[in-house]
Parts: sequence; structure tokens; C-alpha cells
Amino acid sequence: MPRTIVYYFPERALGECIRLLLAYRGEEFIDRRIPHEDWPEIKHKMPFGEMPVLEIDGKKYAQSLAILRYLGRKHGLSGQDLEEDFEIDQNVYFYTDVWTRGGYVYHEANEEAKAANMAELVKNYYPFALKKLDEIIKKNNGHLALGKLTWADFLFAGMYDCVKVKLQMPDLDKKYPSFKKLADSVYALPRCKAYADKAPKTDY
Amino acid sequence: MPRTIVYYFPERALGECIRLLLAYRGEEFIDRRIPHEDWPEIKHKMPFGEMPVLEIDGKKYAQSLAILRYLGRKHGLSGQDLEEDFEIDQNVYFYTDVWTRGGYVYHEANEEAKAANMAELVKNYYPFALKKLDEIIKKNNGHLALGKLTWADFLFAGMYDCVKVKLQMPDLDKKYPSFKKLADSVYALPRCKAYADKAPKTDY
Repeated sequence: MPRTIVYYFPERALGECIRLLLAYRGEEFIDRRIPHEDWPEIKHKMPFGEMPVLEIDGKKYAQSLAILRYLGRKHGLSGQDLEEDFEIDQNVYFYTDVWTRGGYVYHEANEEAKAANMAELVKNYYPFALKKLDEIIKKNNGHLALGKLTWADFLFAGMYDCVKVKLQMPDLDKKYPSFKKLADSVYALPRCKAYADKAPKTDY
Repeated sequence: MPRTIVYYFPERALGECIRLLLAYRGEEFIDRRIPHEDWPEIKHKMPFGEMPVLEIDGKKYAQSLAILRYLGRKHGLSGQDLEEDFEIDQNVYFYTDVWTRGGYVYHEANEEAKAANMAELVKNYYPFALKKLDEIIKKNNGHLALGKLTWADFLFAGMYDCVKVKLQMPDLDKKYPSFKKLADSVYALPRCKAYADKAPKTDY
């Protein structure tokens, strides 16, 4: 049995995607949640000075999306060929792009710039992007790609509450019920539910 | 012979990575460069309203990194197993992160916010990140991963001049000679050179 550790902050977000996927596959792992105040001491021990980091038998894996794709392919949650793997990747990059753009604006310290950039996204990006995301999920039977459960869904679910914060859209559930339904469907998978029931409760 | 088209703006950057990889593999492609003034008319024909887009026999592939990974795996420019593919992905996400952070600051319209965010990156991010990138390239015999030519190097080379603009670091070549050396090594590959010699000259 390999010794597996997931290092992340005491939050769900990018760490949660990995925890959910491992839980689903029945892989035991140590859920190492590093308090923010301890992070400066530990930061230099991580390959890129960032988390999440996955450690398997002493080998460290960094960069959340790279880790998820790796675990997905390893555990039968990827495509059956290059075309299918491409479709997962394409939709994952699109989803990631949506929250990354939102995240930059959310974290902007300058209130004037923050308001202007948020207005720009709300006017020229979110209407198209969120509708497109909704269409993708509906076309894929409630999944992010391939019409079935893949590693992309674990990314979607683990990040979803954090995405609502980054997009500053607490009403996203109502506007696009398909989003919450997809996130809930992952958390309803028996092993994911068992993990989540025991895990510390956090806002996102 | 499949009919392959690369759609992008009349620039190198993300479109160039794909063009370079196809050129290296000897794949003939139509280099469709859409002038910015024509883009609003064409935007809605692209899967996510963005470019680059690769079209092969009528099937459109979007999201630049997804396209590159797909082409890399298809054309023998990826890893030999999951561990190697992971290493490429990990280093690619890191490189991408560097220029994405820089890009957001570069495109900030609010001058005050732009200056403050640039100062933050220069103080707390670039020194670590660029040194790390330099170490990675040196450790990998002048490549971005696996110590040999992979699809990651085409990403590196195609984006490099654009990265200097996004990072607002025209002196990056001098600070980290390994970066320019890697970019140059891809453009020195005979088929890439033949492509570049014929291609329109652009700043980045």
C-alpha cells in the first residue's frame, strides 16, 4: 500500500479535487491541512513553493491540474483515446479559464480597478462563458466532458464553491442549476460522501 | 493527407507553438492569420470564441494547451509513461503560470493598479519563479522537461517573445540566457527554421 499524502491549506478548492478523486478510487491518503500561519515554514519544501502537492511514497507531485490528469489517467477516469483525452482537456481549460479570470479580479487590491474589471467580465465575458459552460454540462449528461464521469468532474466539484467566491456570484446555483447539480453528483458518490462527511467543514 | 488549418491572429504567441510543432513533424497546414479587424465576424465560428483553433478535416480543436498536448502525444513528443507525461504537464503549468500572472498585470488598464501589481510580482514572485524556471531548463539539458525535446519546448519557444512583453522584461535574454537558448534551439530545428523563414515577421 503506497503512502499517499495530500498537502493543502485547510480549505477545499484545488486540494479538494485531488482528495475527492482519491476518495472515489478508495485510495487511502493522509489529508495534511497546513494552517496558513505555518505555510511560510513549509513553502520551501514544496516543488514550486505552492500547494496542493501530492506525495506518493516520498515522490512529490505539484501543479493541481497536472496531478488531476495524472491520477485520472492512472485510475481509469480519463478518455479511451487521444481524441477523448483532448475533449476532457479542452473543457477543463475552459472551466479553469473562467475562474482564473474571476480570481484575478477578486484578489485585486485596488478597489477602482477591481470594480472596472468586474464590470468588464460581467458585461463581455461571463454571459457568454457561463452559458457555454452550462451548454457543455447539459450536452454531456451532467458531466464536464465525454458524457460520463471523468477526472474533470472532480475538478469541477472540488472547486465549485470557491468558483462562486472568485466570480463574486453567490446566486450561481440558481442561475445555472446544472453547475450545482454536477458538483452535488460528485459529492453524492458513496466514497466521496463518506470522505466529505468526515472532513473538516469549510466555506469553500 | 488530412486538411489541417491553424487559425490565429497575425502574431506568433499561442498560435506559433502549434505552427512550430506541426512544422517540425512535417505536417502541412494552412496558416490562417485572422486580422484583428476581421475577428468580430469570425469569433462566433470558434468553439469558445477564442483562438488559436486547430482544424483537422473539418473537426475543430480549441484551447491552446489542450491542442499542444494532443499533438504532442499524437506525434511522439510526449512522455513514455504517465510519470513522464506528468513531468511535462507539471513544468508546462509552471511556465504558463509565470506568463499568465504577468499577462494580467500587463493588460491592466488602471495605471496605479498596474504599477502596484507589477511591483508585487517583481518583489515576491519573479525572483523565485524565474530562477526556478532557469534551474528546470538547466537540469533538463536545455529543455523544459524530460531532458529532451517534447511538446513543452514548442510551447516555450512559440511564446517566448510574447512572455518578455507580458513580463515587461526586455532584458530577460541577458538575465537568463537559458531561456533564449531554449527558444532558439527550437527555431533552429531544420523544419521549424524553414517554416519561420517563410512566415510573416512579427514582434511576438
